[in-house]
Amino acid sequence: MALPLTPIMYSARAQKMRASEIRELLKLTESEDIISFGGGMPDPTLFPKNEFAEIAKDVVRNEKALQYSPTDGIKPFRETVSRLLRKKGLRITYEDVLITTGSQQALDLISKVYLDPGDVVVSESPTYLSAIGAFKSYEADLIGIEMDEDGMDMDKLRNYLDEKDSRCKFIYTIPTYQNPSGITMSYEKRKELLEIAREYNKPIIEDDPYGELAYEGEMAKPIKSLPNSDLVAYLGTGSKILAPSLRVAWIVGPDELLKKCSMGKQSADLCTSALTQSLAKEFIDRGFLAPHLEKLKRVYREKRDAILEAMEKYFPSTVTWTHPNGGLFIWATLPKGMNTSEMLPRALEKGIAYVPGRAFHPDGSGENTLRINFSFSTLEEIDKGVKRLGELIKEAMA
Amino acid sequence: MALPLTPIMYSARAQKMRASEIRELLKLTESEDIISFGGGMPDPTLFPKNEFAEIAKDVVRNEKALQYSPTDGIKPFRETVSRLLRKKGLRITYEDVLITTGSQQALDLISKVYLDPGDVVVSESPTYLSAIGAFKSYEADLIGIEMDEDGMDMDKLRNYLDEKDSRCKFIYTIPTYQNPSGITMSYEKRKELLEIAREYNKPIIEDDPYGELAYEGEMAKPIKSLPNSDLVAYLGTGSKILAPSLRVAWIVGPDELLKKCSMGKQSADLCTSALTQSLAKEFIDRGFLAPHLEKLKRVYREKRDAILEAMEKYFPSTVTWTHPNGGLFIWATLPKGMNTSEMLPRALEKGIAYVPGRAFHPDGSGENTLRINFSFSTLEEIDKGVKRLGELIKEAMA
Repeated sequence: MALPLTPIMYSARAQKMRASEIRELLKLTESEDIISFGGGMPDPTLFPKNEFAEIAKDVVRNEKALQYSPTDGIKPFRETVSRLLRKKGLRITYEDVLITTGSQQALDLISKVYLDPGDVVVSESPTYLSAIGAFKSYEADLIGIEMDEDGMDMDKLRNYLDEKDSRCKFIYTIPTYQNPSGITMSYEKRKELLEIAREYNKPIIEDDPYGELAYEGEMAKPIKSLPNSDLVAYLGTGSKILAPSLRVAWIVGPDELLKKCSMGKQSADLCTSALTQSLAKEFIDRGFLAPHLEKLKRVYREKRDAILEAMEKYFPSTVTWTHPNGGLFIWATLPKGMNTSEMLPRALEKGIAYVPGRAFHPDGSGENTLRINFSFSTLEEIDKGVKRLGELIKEAMA
Repeated sequence: MALPLTPIMYSARAQKMRASEIRELLKLTESEDIISFGGGMPDPTLFPKNEFAEIAKDVVRNEKALQYSPTDGIKPFRETVSRLLRKKGLRITYEDVLITTGSQQALDLISKVYLDPGDVVVSESPTYLSAIGAFKSYEADLIGIEMDEDGMDMDKLRNYLDEKDSRCKFIYTIPTYQNPSGITMSYEKRKELLEIAREYNKPIIEDDPYGELAYEGEMAKPIKSLPNSDLVAYLGTGSKILAPSLRVAWIVGPDELLKKCSMGKQSADLCTSALTQSLAKEFIDRGFLAPHLEKLKRVYREKRDAILEAMEKYFPSTVTWTHPNGGLFIWATLPKGMNTSEMLPRALEKGIAYVPGRAFHPDGSGENTLRINFSFSTLEEIDKGVKRLGELIKEAMA
């Protein structure tokens, strides 16, 4: 029996893959009696189960919903999505919509289509953890631009592009109720960002998973709804407004980009489930979405108010945090010198989970910050969890 | 208003992407009155709609089936799959199973984990079209090894590895009712392939979407069920035995490979739908699979017999074809000098579609061959379609 001659070699990208320590730690929270502010999960008690049950029994009787389907998505669902987005001011038809298997796939396809090793993506800092993961999986470098209360610092963005323009392939932004910060980019900055993108000819990837979850004030206008926004690819998803397990999301973008993404998708997973696309389509077409959104917003607003109140009550006065008008996250900053990654194991011991801020920083900074999700836990858990977290912070400060 | 300064650059891999002409041509067949032997689609009238309807109304009431789920798949489904595979002789537990979004994703992840640009994949020639697509999307080269009636030519494989070993990252095979040829690798060759793989230390990717669709004789033993098959990653799928739109498939493989694939999957689509995993799991656990498979085999066997009979009746005697014992495809070879790609537009005019053989050849040869699918069309369509195809071939020979 021959012995192995040479080790089996993984690809360069696979050799760089590292399991996230934080993810491994947070995995532990799933099975235990831990109050989790860690994930970005919807409140499972709010899933519209009755509506889905009613729709599902019809949908599975449709042969087309069980068969292979076009890579770009089934036409009726693309039409439904384009109708929804036209209401948000996008001037599009179904042909401008590519359906993806969750927004994560949209990020993967856009990376596949734009990024060579060593290319640069510019994003807010902090930014979405799994977007960093997608960009890095294509061996790109990430440059994070700091934010003010009204979004990305446009002067810093301009400075960066002036100095290092050539390697930047696109600008990634979550302008509304940003993950992880909860910050919303002002209308003025949206216009300015679009101007900068046009000036430097850089595509904008506008990721908008939370835009519908507006707890007060007007709904923010997508950058993609502004005039002359051809350079913008807009990403939306059903995960936060319908259910994550449908794995339906969409890219709206220039024709050439969608064609490339579609070719990439063909070799990535052939097509997104026609069954879950049909469920999402029927849910929207039967008029279930509007009342469901009202309910989501009512409950999440209440949770947001409760968590802000609890933080006021239990956190030491040296801690600051954002006050988001929507979405799922609050961003807290502890005094300089503190380290939320090092605090995490102790937090889990105390039965409370969060995500350390460093994970969201392209440059690995932000060690005194953390992200707190308020959609998943109950009101009682929120009070109890924030109390524990406050105690933990005081302990760590002592 | 600034004008674009430089063109927006796609990645090297995206610049190489080409829309498949054949795919574009075959797309036309979807909306028209054409008898299609083109795709690899299950007979839609056989989808177990009633069973799915019964299961779906229960499953959507389970909150976990609507939520985000673990990247590796939900544990109950991984257990169900491992139980099924143990019946096929694989010595595994649920931990050896990674759930993917269709087998296409499995091919994508394996490519992501193994392939650097310029690496080589060795496969049968002809081989599965979208596997070629996945490997090429990672800028790998493909080397096709000819087949005999009992599978890949092992001497040619050995010769290739002797001469050009170092750049080959893995051997891709569809040993049972191969797509596109319908050929099944003999037990002897399976053992020999495993020996060669061990000798040269090359992983085998064993793709087995059709193994259950055995119309006569014993079911073939997976290579992964042989002793000392650690080097084998085994791919299975629900697409042909349940429904393609569930988008559930699985990789069974060495721990390290699964870990890498799981990290790749995390940035590719986070998780496969817990909803469709739950539907598949319940379908199997409630005992619906065995009778459903019996029905599939009965109907497909009848179609296979009908198409072989029709080919005997309508095809000129200079055409030869395979006689598969299972699966969905027949492979036909026309006299040398004929060109099935050039024949395709005329075929579509005559209301009949197939896939030209060249598409399945890594080296672009096989222009006088074609793949004929017999699962999708009705018995009447089969007779009518083969008659038209026979006429077309005679026309082209004249």
